[in-house]
Amino acid sequence: MRKVGIVVGSLRKESFSRKIAVNVAKLFPADYTTEILEIGNLPLYNEEYDQNPPPEYTAFRSKVRDFDAFLFVTPEYNRSIPGVLKNALDVGSRPYGQNAWAGKPAAIISQSIGSLGGFGANHHLRQILTFLDMPTLQQPEAYIGNSPALFDEKGLITNQDTIEFLQSFVDSFVALIERYKA
Amino acid sequence: MRKVGIVVGSLRKESFSRKIAVNVAKLFPADYTTEILEIGNLPLYNEEYDQNPPPEYTAFRSKVRDFDAFLFVTPEYNRSIPGVLKNALDVGSRPYGQNAWAGKPAAIISQSIGSLGGFGANHHLRQILTFLDMPTLQQPEAYIGNSPALFDEKGLITNQDTIEFLQSFVDSFVALIERYKA
Amino acid sequence: MRKVGIVVGSLRKESFSRKIAVNVAKLFPADYTTEILEIGNLPLYNEEYDQNPPPEYTAFRSKVRDFDAFLFVTPEYNRSIPGVLKNALDVGSRPYGQNAWAGKPAAIISQSIGSLGGFGANHHLRQILTFLDMPTLQQPEAYIGNSPALFDEKGLITNQDTIEFLQSFVDSFVALIERYKA
Amino acid sequence: MRKVGIVVGSLRKESFSRKIAVNVAKLFPADYTTEILEIGNLPLYNEEYDQNPPPEYTAFRSKVRDFDAFLFVTPEYNRSIPGVLKNALDVGSRPYGQNAWAGKPAAIISQSIGSLGGFGANHHLRQILTFLDMPTLQQPEAYIGNSPALFDEKGLITNQDTIEFLQSFVDSFVALIERYKA
Repeated sequence: MRKVGIVVGSLRKESFSRKIAVNVAKLFPADYTTEILEIGNLPLYNEEYDQNPPPEYTAFRSKVRDFDAFLFVTPEYNRSIPGVLKNALDVGSRPYGQNAWAGKPAAIISQSIGSLGGFGANHHLRQILTFLDMPTLQQPEAYIGNSPALFDEKGLITNQDTIEFLQSFVDSFVALIERYKA
Repeated sequence: MRKVGIVVGSLRKESFSRKIAVNVAKLFPADYTTEILEIGNLPLYNEEYDQNPPPEYTAFRSKVRDFDAFLFVTPEYNRSIPGVLKNALDVGSRPYGQNAWAGKPAAIISQSIGSLGGFGANHHLRQILTFLDMPTLQQPEAYIGNSPALFDEKGLITNQDTIEFLQSFVDSFVALIERYKA
Repeated sequence: MRKVGIVVGSLRKESFSRKIAVNVAKLFPADYTTEILEIGNLPLYNEEYDQNPPPEYTAFRSKVRDFDAFLFVTPEYNRSIPGVLKNALDVGSRPYGQNAWAGKPAAIISQSIGSLGGFGANHHLRQILTFLDMPTLQQPEAYIGNSPALFDEKGLITNQDTIEFLQSFVDSFVALIERYKA
Repeated sequence: MRKVGIVVGSLRKESFSRKIAVNVAKLFPADYTTEILEIGNLPLYNEEYDQNPPPEYTAFRSKVRDFDAFLFVTPEYNRSIPGVLKNALDVGSRPYGQNAWAGKPAAIISQSIGSLGGFGANHHLRQILTFLDMPTLQQPEAYIGNSPALFDEKGLITNQDTIEFLQSFVDSFVALIERYKA
């Protein structure tokens, strides 16, 4: 069994990123489990916490270590990733030398209400994952534009082309995970 | 009188970024005032707050509007800006259409303990400032490496070359501000 | 009179970037002239040329100096600017200390056949323009997607929304130029 | 036997990048061969060539296909990769659908005369390699600053710390290649 942690870059309950995450979670193979990690309760990172971390930090870092791989699904805020997502990445990476993300394969889906598909968030995140030492899926890239139009009333993605694209994305991600975890 | 807000990317009280900020603040002309904006008390941005913002958001946005220009002094976390700085930028930029940063000239000093001088943070921030519509000082760029060695016991920068560089940086920033505020 | 140089990132004669450039050139005020600089004849930059430059380099650098400002219109190749455009930027920036681009205001239009509008090219170019010391238009950003659909048989842009957007883009660029050249 | 192509971002014969490449080539295991690909003879890419490519393009694309992996050693020009390197990447990636780089593992060494180590070139190249579908070594990153001081009179790197770092870099790259080519 492989455990994939899903990190959603928006805290809004009805966020399009979260809805995409829920849809994509169903596309993993039977021997994979997925779980959305909550990041909204993490205090803003302050290096002074390193000696005496808040319990939310300790729990989060422990949870991160427990997963085999991570899928990031995120909107773009101001041409980069949301502060809340960066804060979670920072918390998981510290204290120095105890990066909980290290070595875990990753994949990125960025999405936007408009047509640009969160390109800026996608590639800022890639630069960060380089430092976090997470082998990251190169192709296919996933830039999802016009995200509000994706869902039916129940929040399901119904467009067949989109579903097929997301399935091929997951399949490629699974192949990356297997390459690293074999 | 011009009012320059200084935003420090690290929450640690003794942070090198804050020390640099304190030193640089003294280099502005007599008709300039500077003030460090605190960002550590801002709850993680959630779009649901747009309708009914926390008082910290309202106070912060009001403060941002009150400045003529902004100096960012920041470390690099994981090859990008710290989550806490991105969160402050996000809070000030929302709700949509009410970007409090818009039109205000900006300058960036990135710093690191090592030699790379926070290049990744510096340019991720530049991409963000494009969207926030802040005319940003192009030259000189300020990448300050080996920052712990900059300060004497009282936290003062004493190296003459560094002081002269920082003065030229401030002079160029002041020229940018005057160009926009004249 | 202001002279705006237009640099097109694609060498293809019928390129969409060039067609956009031709359309946008008409939107400048009456006291502005525009001219497309050709960059396809520049040998690949080699620092060994600094002492004894090819005549194409000398002519290009002289031409660059002669303009007041630059508009870049470019496709994205492999998530960055085309090599041919980077080569022209490199040629104009050297030898060290003789950067012909310095101080000249710039604006960027990126375009793509797909929906992403050349975001990667746009922001890689912005990072470069920081070093070249070119004050760059922040807003509006111009990411033009689905570019083949823009033109009528004569290569004219006919969509009224697109024309209005491009006019507002040019107006903002002109305001930037006037701010710097006044 | 594995064949690693080395692409050097500077055309200068005595370039520091080339010298680093020559030194690093010796650090690969016995069952690896390395070869520097020359890129200075490639005409500036023009999509019109796709139907009837210059012989230099055909030879280069064929050569690229023949390698198992690529090491890029490059200076930074104007906060990005040199135009000549981007041109080679563009040539190898086209025509559309015939990307010769696809799937081949890659590693990056950026270098600079100053202290910043070519960070801008390094990460612009990473964004490009995402699109080219090249699994890229995440850690260790290699930013080599103050490169002129690295070499003795014969062009050899003699500093033991640098050699050990470069060996660990090559070892990690070899592990990546084996992961993909096994």
